[in-house]
Amino acid sequence: MGRWEPNAHGRLAAAALELYSERGYEQTTVAEIARRAGLTERTFFRHYADKREVLFATSGEFQELFVRAVAGALKSAAPIDALAVGLDAVSEMLTDQRDCVRTRQAVIMANPELQERDLIKLTSMSAALADTLRRHGVTEPAASLAAEAGVAVFKVGFERWVAGDEERELSRLMRESLDELKAVTAGR
Amino acid sequence: MGRWEPNAHGRLAAAALELYSERGYEQTTVAEIARRAGLTERTFFRHYADKREVLFATSGEFQELFVRAVAGALKSAAPIDALAVGLDAVSEMLTDQRDCVRTRQAVIMANPELQERDLIKLTSMSAALADTLRRHGVTEPAASLAAEAGVAVFKVGFERWVAGDEERELSRLMRESLDELKAVTAGR
Repeated sequence: MGRWEPNAHGRLAAAALELYSERGYEQTTVAEIARRAGLTERTFFRHYADKREVLFATSGEFQELFVRAVAGALKSAAPIDALAVGLDAVSEMLTDQRDCVRTRQAVIMANPELQERDLIKLTSMSAALADTLRRHGVTEPAASLAAEAGVAVFKVGFERWVAGDEERELSRLMRESLDELKAVTAGR
Repeated sequence: MGRWEPNAHGRLAAAALELYSERGYEQTTVAEIARRAGLTERTFFRHYADKREVLFATSGEFQELFVRAVAGALKSAAPIDALAVGLDAVSEMLTDQRDCVRTRQAVIMANPELQERDLIKLTSMSAALADTLRRHGVTEPAASLAAEAGVAVFKVGFERWVAGDEERELSRLMRESLDELKAVTAGR
């Protein structure tokens, strides 16, 4: 192990995002990311397995936050209302990192391989939410359908929020999306 | 071009599915598929770009059937009811090919790369359904949410149907899943 580098993890992530955004993901090398961050390639590989992982390093944390918020709310709320609490929690996290999240999303949308990875993360989120619902006594297929509904609301709300011209708050867009899903499934 | 081979397309698909199921997808070569079908590699490549495409060759047809059924129903039905008509149409198509569909699903579930491809096809289906809804006057975000709801119902109903121990009809499982989604979003 080399010497300790203050906040190397965050500096590498910021440098990577800058470069992916400026030059494109494919055109950026790990050597360039390390140089931009004022660190070495060795240090990069102590923090990330490869240049793709930089973009998905917080996915686990994100999923955990969502699942934990839903699990907490399930004690006293119906599944759909617990999912709304989870959507509020992730909206807050994403809003705190708004610029970074938007840049990241633009990088992902420009690359089919990254889009695939992003889809897999959403599928994993749906599976984790369904699992949480089942552990709180929700039976199948209700658990899977509620989880899919939660992820659908997240996807649609998030996509509107990251669109360049959207000025409304993410938590509000999520609530609107959820209301819209309720209206649609009620046949309106 | 070589001489015309009667039903080469279908024979290659059947041979590929047999081999993927017997030996695994990774372990099967195009040469082996051609040999099993009693055809040449050249003939294989006149019909399929690669061994993965054999598994997804009917995805376009499947999506078109779904979209066309939804579009036809939208003239007189609410979006969610039009989606139910589409789910009925694809259920019928899948039921007609039940054994083949189950074998294919087992092959896909054993391989992460194929699972990714399958996820992309579902995303493409959701986008096509949303587009159809918009062209019939459904506004956003209702169009995207209805499409996501339709795909969620499809996924959950299909997964139950392909599970080995499920004896009920696919169309019935789809209707149950849709009813369950309605109940869940209504807060029950």
